[in-house]
Amino acid sequence: MSTPDVFKDEIQRLTVSTVRTEPDMEVGVYLLRRLEELGVKSFFGVPGDFNLGFLDLVDDYPGIDWIGACNELNAAYAADGYARIKTGNVGAVLTTYGVGELSAINGIAGAYAEMVPVVHIAGFPSLKEQEDRPLLHHTMGDGRYNAYAQAAELFTHSHTILNDVHTAAAEIDRVLSDCVLESRPVYIALPTDVAYAKISSYRLNIPLPRKPLLNDRAAEAAAINEIAKLVEEADGDVAVLVDVGAVRYNVVEEVRSFVETTGFGVYASPMGKSVVSEAYERYGGLYTGATTRPEIKAKIEDAKLLISIGALKSDLNTGNFTNKLNVARTVELHATTTKIKFSEYAGVGMKYLLPKLASVLSTTSGIKSKTLTIPVPKWTYSLPQESDEIISQTWLWARIGQFLQPKDVVIAETGTSAFGVLDIPFPDNAIFVSQILWGSIGWTVGSTLGAAVAAREKGLGRVILFIGDGSIQLTVQELSTMLREDLKPIVFILNNGGYTIERALRGERRKYNDTVNWGWPRLMQALGDVDGTRTKSYVVNTKAEMDELLNDTGFCAAEVMQVVEIRMRMFDAPYALKAGTPFGSKW
Amino acid sequence: MSTPDVFKDEIQRLTVSTVRTEPDMEVGVYLLRRLEELGVKSFFGVPGDFNLGFLDLVDDYPGIDWIGACNELNAAYAADGYARIKTGNVGAVLTTYGVGELSAINGIAGAYAEMVPVVHIAGFPSLKEQEDRPLLHHTMGDGRYNAYAQAAELFTHSHTILNDVHTAAAEIDRVLSDCVLESRPVYIALPTDVAYAKISSYRLNIPLPRKPLLNDRAAEAAAINEIAKLVEEADGDVAVLVDVGAVRYNVVEEVRSFVETTGFGVYASPMGKSVVSEAYERYGGLYTGATTRPEIKAKIEDAKLLISIGALKSDLNTGNFTNKLNVARTVELHATTTKIKFSEYAGVGMKYLLPKLASVLSTTSGIKSKTLTIPVPKWTYSLPQESDEIISQTWLWARIGQFLQPKDVVIAETGTSAFGVLDIPFPDNAIFVSQILWGSIGWTVGSTLGAAVAAREKGLGRVILFIGDGSIQLTVQELSTMLREDLKPIVFILNNGGYTIERALRGERRKYNDTVNWGWPRLMQALGDVDGTRTKSYVVNTKAEMDELLNDTGFCAAEVMQVVEIRMRMFDAPYALKAGTPFGSKW
Repeated sequence: MSTPDVFKDEIQRLTVSTVRTEPDMEVGVYLLRRLEELGVKSFFGVPGDFNLGFLDLVDDYPGIDWIGACNELNAAYAADGYARIKTGNVGAVLTTYGVGELSAINGIAGAYAEMVPVVHIAGFPSLKEQEDRPLLHHTMGDGRYNAYAQAAELFTHSHTILNDVHTAAAEIDRVLSDCVLESRPVYIALPTDVAYAKISSYRLNIPLPRKPLLNDRAAEAAAINEIAKLVEEADGDVAVLVDVGAVRYNVVEEVRSFVETTGFGVYASPMGKSVVSEAYERYGGLYTGATTRPEIKAKIEDAKLLISIGALKSDLNTGNFTNKLNVARTVELHATTTKIKFSEYAGVGMKYLLPKLASVLSTTSGIKSKTLTIPVPKWTYSLPQESDEIISQTWLWARIGQFLQPKDVVIAETGTSAFGVLDIPFPDNAIFVSQILWGSIGWTVGSTLGAAVAAREKGLGRVILFIGDGSIQLTVQELSTMLREDLKPIVFILNNGGYTIERALRGERRKYNDTVNWGWPRLMQALGDVDGTRTKSYVVNTKAEMDELLNDTGFCAAEVMQVVEIRMRMFDAPYALKAGTPFGSKW
Repeated sequence: MSTPDVFKDEIQRLTVSTVRTEPDMEVGVYLLRRLEELGVKSFFGVPGDFNLGFLDLVDDYPGIDWIGACNELNAAYAADGYARIKTGNVGAVLTTYGVGELSAINGIAGAYAEMVPVVHIAGFPSLKEQEDRPLLHHTMGDGRYNAYAQAAELFTHSHTILNDVHTAAAEIDRVLSDCVLESRPVYIALPTDVAYAKISSYRLNIPLPRKPLLNDRAAEAAAINEIAKLVEEADGDVAVLVDVGAVRYNVVEEVRSFVETTGFGVYASPMGKSVVSEAYERYGGLYTGATTRPEIKAKIEDAKLLISIGALKSDLNTGNFTNKLNVARTVELHATTTKIKFSEYAGVGMKYLLPKLASVLSTTSGIKSKTLTIPVPKWTYSLPQESDEIISQTWLWARIGQFLQPKDVVIAETGTSAFGVLDIPFPDNAIFVSQILWGSIGWTVGSTLGAAVAAREKGLGRVILFIGDGSIQLTVQELSTMLREDLKPIVFILNNGGYTIERALRGERRKYNDTVNWGWPRLMQALGDVDGTRTKSYVVNTKAEMDELLNDTGFCAAEVMQVVEIRMRMFDAPYALKAGTPFGSKW
């Protein structure tokens, strides 16, 4: 692996900052150039009068497509979904001052919690307006022009108001670097006049940094030495548990290479599902604490050594804190630290450590042959034999497992869907997308828009959304944007009469968990497929109907946008959700 | 008018706070009792696991109906619309921790800007969870449990986290008093366990204060004396300009009585439209600065004395700051101050001043007879003669003017609708609802839900929404909640192919101002009227069709929910919007 020369970069950077060159580019265009550099080909948002000027620049910019969303929250969700699929790059969302940016803030906060690199650009009053502070529309009416930026600070890693033309380029570079390196959202307030101010484009000669700082070499060497010793002592009985940090900090390739080189059995947490292909021969399945299948549980909890990669120990990612990992037998790899048993090695991040560790272990004789003697459970899910035709949660997910294809992008809403999809063994390189920490219901609709755009850019497979009839009502309008953008997602709506995940928790039969039963087969006609020629809608009542649909080659080809209403029982949930909830456990 | 004895209240309050009584009521129920006292009969929101416990209390509480909305932003908008109609009372919205409350924050910020008393209650982690700070879902993942409350502080007048059971009742009383007296939103974070903690209900013996603090008596007397002198000098040529503060600070009755007693001609700003009935014989129409009709403009700008009531001088409320009011001839009445020419009388608020001033002026001989000699323009809007059948903006609003009935509640979305409705003379006691300062597009859909519920509670007339095909896409799902709640709004969708108000400003033909053309006649079937029996949908292409519909007595009776798509030109806008915009001025 080549070592980036930080000194060389730094010297070049210092040189650039002292060179005075003629202004030759609008601040807005500079920003677009940098976004493009970070992989942004599609840019989501909603127009508003504080961003229309910048939008002219976007519209005229050849490398980036504008994708107007129906509302700002959905646009933020879309940028998040886009960034998740385009690992190592960023997503971007544009909103207008106040009304727009605040509507998006839950989407940005979710990206923060789930470590997704989203750039939030908000239109901002001009420099003169900021000075005079007239009582403009979209202001609080009390002269506090900065209140929204203050709110943004709470939910982003870095933030800037581009009020100084002279530092605008440096500020853009600073926050965008943070976005991609820290994998967290950032906020840029862009005053209407500054978007058009001319600056030098000279800084563009230096690409933004894309790799983390190098590890502390001595600490790294010590850590590798220590881990190698533990591996040797484990005598082949080493398990790898992959979590969300692996994909967010862009070490997917390093992890794949590491597990292939060593032969260690590899498992995933819910948020780490599909980071390593679930079709990989040494992949053993999902670890969810107490509700884990016993054969998988034993492999993880009894391994002589567990190597945990990018762990995020939230309630729903750990079987509600029932994971039993023995620290005395665990190595934890993170973005900037390594923890070996009880000792932390600061400044030793996994991006550089993993390849070196793999290299050291590959030269230690006999390790791989020993690890390969340790069997890995087969991660399967058989169709249950049930006596009736009602589509049960248990049957559904097993059946969906047969339906999935390699490279599919599978998006599961917080609710029965996210729990259910976890159980499905994914085909090779199918990708799982969910919001297990933040859990904002409705998120998947916006996220599917962004993910589908990204999947098309990357040439991935079908985009398949699973969502309940309650959750989809929060954000439904964005299906219309998918239609306009000629995307072809398959949208499965699990119609079980309201908020089932909440019924499992509390108020099983309370009216507050009921939602209106919509006319799902009419939905796409209402949302823009006026003559019904550009989408297909289905209603599925029985297992036989579901089978027939999923066996239909035209349906599977997903050549138009398709919406499937699946009618299910109100009181039914996937196993893990039943097991962990007061009412669900009685279903 | 009776004078509240603040000392008596205060003594009683001090007594209560020192009385120790047995806990007999859950904190959640105490909160509901106080909300009910402030006029809350319907409570909007979305369930989530941090508020389900409290929701059980709501569900069991006889005096308050739970109205579950499709999403939190819409729920906040609904609480805002509800509060606007129930002048002097409050609206309430319930969300869950993080994901829910942040989705609602734009609605709360809008209520702040527009001075609407909305109580935002957010579910919050239990005391133990706050102490241990586990990595729960809906948290930021970094242990900052208070980040959302910090955001709420920016957009509310008062806020509290009910962590101390001993002060919970006092804290509830404090923020709710602020809500109703300051007419601004407040925030209450309710930990899951505290909702069920038992406290004494003794404080409920003292009602929350509903009236502002008394005026400084000496300053008030001086102000009245000064104003009376100016009125006398004006020799009857006095105009009254009513603005939004009059309704928000609950002086509608005082204003009505004042203008009737004095006979002064009365006019309104856009945000003050309908505060004084537009059918009142001495009502002269709308003042919008430069775009005001000349005969009205002269009456306001040339009056020897102008009495301005509750003014809010925002851009869109003043014809983009083109209002020409001569301070040397103006008296401004506000909630807590009075400004006479250039002098401010602090502590002299309009609630108590107006009746006293009316009383003084009524005993000054000859004033009313003089004022009645000053003619007031007739506020009318004739149907234009146009040669084609296309429904123009100019024609539409005039025709709608003929359609309105007394006590109708008319809600106009920011866009061509809000500008267009301003021009319509309203029948007696018809109410105008719009969001002219905050201007968050999509707001009216949620707001209509709340306004329609409030209108039903108050026995008002029809609820009529005007919204564009672009704006409705932000928040469309809440039409479904109106259906479930058996509300009967008439929803006019002005279909002009996108964001027309933005086209008038910039990007006239840019793609970012285009939206998807939905299948509007199918909309209500998709949103829950599955068999099409509970709503009616219409498409109107021509003036003749519009006439026919508006003349139909069944349609006018509004006995079911009705949705009307009005097909209009893309490049057309009401006069005021055309006049003030770079592209609109060419249409």
